[in-house]
Amino acid sequence: MIFLKKLLKGEKRTVAQTISVVENEGDTKILENIFKYTGKAYHIGITGPPGAGKSTLVNAIAKQLLEKNKKIGIIAVDPTSPFSGGALLGDRVRMTDLALKENVFIRSMASRGSLGGLAQKTKDVALVLDASGMDYILIETIGVGQVELDIAQVCDTTVVALVPESGDSIQAMKAGLLEIADVIVVNKGDREGCDSLIMELKFALDLRQQKAGWHYPIVKTIATEGVGIEELVATIQSHKEYLKRSGRFEKDRKEKLKLHIHELIEEKIKSHLKEFVIKDDELEKIINRVYERKLNPYHIADEITNKIFKVREDV
Amino acid sequence: MIFLKKLLKGEKRTVAQTISVVENEGDTKILENIFKYTGKAYHIGITGPPGAGKSTLVNAIAKQLLEKNKKIGIIAVDPTSPFSGGALLGDRVRMTDLALKENVFIRSMASRGSLGGLAQKTKDVALVLDASGMDYILIETIGVGQVELDIAQVCDTTVVALVPESGDSIQAMKAGLLEIADVIVVNKGDREGCDSLIMELKFALDLRQQKAGWHYPIVKTIATEGVGIEELVATIQSHKEYLKRSGRFEKDRKEKLKLHIHELIEEKIKSHLKEFVIKDDELEKIINRVYERKLNPYHIADEITNKIFKVREDV
Repeated sequence: MIFLKKLLKGEKRTVAQTISVVENEGDTKILENIFKYTGKAYHIGITGPPGAGKSTLVNAIAKQLLEKNKKIGIIAVDPTSPFSGGALLGDRVRMTDLALKENVFIRSMASRGSLGGLAQKTKDVALVLDASGMDYILIETIGVGQVELDIAQVCDTTVVALVPESGDSIQAMKAGLLEIADVIVVNKGDREGCDSLIMELKFALDLRQQKAGWHYPIVKTIATEGVGIEELVATIQSHKEYLKRSGRFEKDRKEKLKLHIHELIEEKIKSHLKEFVIKDDELEKIINRVYERKLNPYHIADEITNKIFKVREDV
Repeated sequence: MIFLKKLLKGEKRTVAQTISVVENEGDTKILENIFKYTGKAYHIGITGPPGAGKSTLVNAIAKQLLEKNKKIGIIAVDPTSPFSGGALLGDRVRMTDLALKENVFIRSMASRGSLGGLAQKTKDVALVLDASGMDYILIETIGVGQVELDIAQVCDTTVVALVPESGDSIQAMKAGLLEIADVIVVNKGDREGCDSLIMELKFALDLRQQKAGWHYPIVKTIATEGVGIEELVATIQSHKEYLKRSGRFEKDRKEKLKLHIHELIEEKIKSHLKEFVIKDDELEKIINRVYERKLNPYHIADEITNKIFKVREDV
């Protein structure tokens, strides 16, 4: 299998082709074949509200890791990211610069319109990059919804980027985001309100710190000038070491694999249901009766589920 | 059942209690009991990016409907909404004002942190409000993710609110949002850039218009001053009439019921899986082998799914 060899060596065109197949055709055959070569890449999630400078951070982190001779895969799931083509021309040029490096592979995920299945596809793409020999996979997402929470599940370290500005909408997003953060970055750290944001964050994190055994660090950066990036990368590194030392790395990874299996089963069952159980003419009749309120959907759901599992439980 | 009687009459305290039970305990018994009294309320979704003035629009629409002697339920799923307690004090006071009216019931959904299941819970709450005799249910969501798309499924008319300002991030959101819009509102219509936004929108909607048989209207409003609200309500009304006239109302509603049944079944199967099929000691061993890359998750998922369905197919 020349194709597989090329992929495992990280040959850029083959990596790109493989990702396209995985993304568009939903074919799990390739993923099945490459799975045994995965598990080596360290996954870093970078998330945060629009305008937090996530791409600039990703860019800066990638450069630091490049200097250490690491191979880096970047996945941008953020529709406002210059990686995904959503931002200003200047940004995009800067990113293209990074994409030309031998040891960097950048992929943006189409997220406009349909967000369903996006998290799953991101995980699949990460698997391909993992197999292709990347040391680090950086995943950039916009921090506003379920997709981020789902994608955080694939990351070993999740970095949440915030900026000292804006009002309640960002406050609200922060609330959900802090729960998935391992490392917090306050970017644009030269702006007014930076110190009070850090104080607020420390206050918000206080409760979590006692529980989890990891002192959630807050790193101040000015990503556009490279300020604080070295510290950020060192902090991510120390989180990695914490995970390994405490046994949480293996535990978390196993948890993620379990979740992955669950998701695969659920997906299979869903399509099975549509094919075998629900796609009957009978269903039309049932729906009509539900519409007329002569039947209720809870009862129907119970009946169908029982039918599926009754036999199984006897086995 | 005095309780049920009170609920059906829309007694506010009973409605609130019922919603709390449904929201917190995940008990479908109540929903099963009230289902036959539902199907009468018309569901209007109001979505859009932060700062589009969605709550002010909801507020204004509700007032218009109140004047027509309608009973109105409001569900706020937007963490930046004054209904949910996310916005400025001034806004919140204005909303409280509305909440005191006899014919208005307002409920905000806790969306901070965990977004999983939020769409389903919103649908459940809407069902309670429907049973409680509301003529209209207004559902306000922040337009940034999967949850909106899921909630749009429960709405008969989806209104997308935009403002003539801001850059790419909103552009990006618009892209996904337009696909679920039945009516588009350009709010803060006195601001610069309003006309060019309308032109852009018209251009973007051109392709859709031919397909769907409904001329997607764009309504210009200044919600804070009540400008354009009458036209907006009339437009929603005409969408309602279009749906009824064309037979799409019944068709869409049946489609939604079908989806609801699907979701219920999937949920049941999920918990079944956790209880019966996957919660084995054996799974630990399997996961360990997957972690060591000696097994792959795709194969495992196949095996388990086949086990479930093999017997069923023989029946």
